[in-house]
Amino acid sequence: MTPLSEIEKRLATLQECLNSQGLEGALIHGVTNLYYFTATAQQAHLWVPVAGKPVLLVRRVLERARAESPLPSIEAMSSLKKLPVFLAGARRIAMELDIMPVSLFARYQKAIDGLDAVDIGPTTRLIRSVKSKLEIDLVKRAAAASDAAFTEIRDATTEGMSELDLAIVAESAERRHGFQGVLRWRASSGFECPWVHILAGDSALDFSFSDTPFGGRGVTAAAPYGAGYATIKAGQPVCVDFALARDGYIHDMTRTLVIGMLPDQLVDAYAVSRAMNGMVRAEARPGVTGEQLWNRCVEIASAAGLSENFMGFGQQRVSFVGHGVGLELDELPVLAPRQSLALVAGNVIAVEPKFFFPGIGAVGLENTYAIHENSVETLTLTPDDLVLL
Amino acid sequence: MTPLSEIEKRLATLQECLNSQGLEGALIHGVTNLYYFTATAQQAHLWVPVAGKPVLLVRRVLERARAESPLPSIEAMSSLKKLPVFLAGARRIAMELDIMPVSLFARYQKAIDGLDAVDIGPTTRLIRSVKSKLEIDLVKRAAAASDAAFTEIRDATTEGMSELDLAIVAESAERRHGFQGVLRWRASSGFECPWVHILAGDSALDFSFSDTPFGGRGVTAAAPYGAGYATIKAGQPVCVDFALARDGYIHDMTRTLVIGMLPDQLVDAYAVSRAMNGMVRAEARPGVTGEQLWNRCVEIASAAGLSENFMGFGQQRVSFVGHGVGLELDELPVLAPRQSLALVAGNVIAVEPKFFFPGIGAVGLENTYAIHENSVETLTLTPDDLVLL
Repeated sequence: MTPLSEIEKRLATLQECLNSQGLEGALIHGVTNLYYFTATAQQAHLWVPVAGKPVLLVRRVLERARAESPLPSIEAMSSLKKLPVFLAGARRIAMELDIMPVSLFARYQKAIDGLDAVDIGPTTRLIRSVKSKLEIDLVKRAAAASDAAFTEIRDATTEGMSELDLAIVAESAERRHGFQGVLRWRASSGFECPWVHILAGDSALDFSFSDTPFGGRGVTAAAPYGAGYATIKAGQPVCVDFALARDGYIHDMTRTLVIGMLPDQLVDAYAVSRAMNGMVRAEARPGVTGEQLWNRCVEIASAAGLSENFMGFGQQRVSFVGHGVGLELDELPVLAPRQSLALVAGNVIAVEPKFFFPGIGAVGLENTYAIHENSVETLTLTPDDLVLL
Repeated sequence: MTPLSEIEKRLATLQECLNSQGLEGALIHGVTNLYYFTATAQQAHLWVPVAGKPVLLVRRVLERARAESPLPSIEAMSSLKKLPVFLAGARRIAMELDIMPVSLFARYQKAIDGLDAVDIGPTTRLIRSVKSKLEIDLVKRAAAASDAAFTEIRDATTEGMSELDLAIVAESAERRHGFQGVLRWRASSGFECPWVHILAGDSALDFSFSDTPFGGRGVTAAAPYGAGYATIKAGQPVCVDFALARDGYIHDMTRTLVIGMLPDQLVDAYAVSRAMNGMVRAEARPGVTGEQLWNRCVEIASAAGLSENFMGFGQQRVSFVGHGVGLELDELPVLAPRQSLALVAGNVIAVEPKFFFPGIGAVGLENTYAIHENSVETLTLTPDDLVLL
């Protein structure tokens, strides 16, 4: 269980933000923020007044919420109609409007007379982007689980198996090593993304649903992403990009495997992926922006003559090379154009430079890093090498 | 690929609804409805004017959308700012406000001058609740995959393994038999639910996050549902409740396993679950309401002296005994109090009566059925028996 002292620190930060934004309180309902601020993921509302004691209002299983959360004030509340009792007249309220559906919001407007809601989603993303030592330790545990899972994936890779065959190995390995069964995103509109991408050869060129560099064919047009039925062949890159969430916290990594050897051009591109990761370790410091790190990667790709292959090809391209990870996979900061947010100590980022070669496939290296005052700590435990089988 | 004739029929039904509601068109963006009305799940908007030809506006991968959908008009649209070009002055527009976040909706309000949006979510749920023969055949394929997966789950169940061990077997089996990797829900607010519940003994008494009869302990408080680390023991009920989505369509089933034999009380309760499924097969006909079927189950439970054990125990209780399935797990109709919607031919429902025994565990039987004019067709292929190992 997250200690009360840690929860109190997070709540105090939220209350400072509420105060500076002239808000009377925050009403938290999304599972990610609920878990972050209470240590329980039971279905509930958390009411955080700008000053004073928060109260957790549990809709379903009060006993589990009380057992899981160290918060002193945890009550049952089965209907939105009872909210005003706890809100004590507050109207200018922070809510997660970035994830709350319009028709559900109308029910809050009906329940809370004169509700004047302000979106707290972006603020909570900023708060959560700065991790405590406890949180970084949890990402390290996810990194250890990822390394163990990757060893199993690597050892299982053989010529002639399908992407799906290997994805099943990967998914099972993740579960055995503590994957919690759900990978959380913030992005709106029913954003979907598999937690394991196994992309062999030119499958990696199939961009798809999400704003990620790897889409994949999937097993059906109804869910057109992730591993498909393509066969793993010698001499082709096999990209293994997988996120593992354990006790809430996500580690994200990509490795490139090959049975035999890759064409020189791809080996060289993989070395450039390593160089970009090295650049981030050397240069990502508090004060540096996500845009500056993106620009540095663009420079490195250009110097290597790989601009056309960097993070896409032709019309299929994404404009980012890294992202925060924590309780969600799409956290701040983002390493991309126009990202002027300066890094701070406590950020945890996944850096995923990838290069795409039409007709052949892709190569890339992704590690997860913690940003400290004067250094970058590599949380990923797996060696950076191209994996030759 | 879904044939164009089927897609055209679905779109015509939507246009009739738009016409009767006085709407100028529908702007569809959620992946479930997109797939239903276009046969592609690529990131896109579908504009359906009340009369005339729909156009699919693809944000990311135009080529994949064109390859996957039989619709004749498929164009690229990378920015919401271009929407007015296609909407041709329409303002009274149906949108999926049941799943669209408030802050995203504000971007549409900015892009579409004078936007007067009406929630089309409930209407699309009604349209999708009536399945065509093609759709029922797809659920049958998911039923065959589920039966094959269940055989593997049953054969792998041994004393001393953990719920998680068996869940990993189940998850892998689902994938090998075509599970698409994502299980879709409509319910709002980041609703989460694992697709496999393996609940041994009193784990089945742990209600949790979702409004479902089975919660489970899960492997962490960060995702407190589904299989946990509890050990499977002889003489205890092991509940296996799993949904399998294949080519979009979901089959849902529950079986109860036991190594050795259950106490008589639980064997008797299982027989009552069977009786309730039998009642549905005999009585679920067009014109009957979800509430009537719920009431009949309540009567049967009462006659068996099991009212206190039906769909929960003590304060932990859910008030439904069945739900529609299709592209989403929580479709219409719902077998629950106050559900006055009459069944129609083409409905597909999962019926899941369960009985809970404090200190012991739960038993239940769930099948998926298609409602026809004069009969109920059992889509589930697995025998109804209590599974003795």
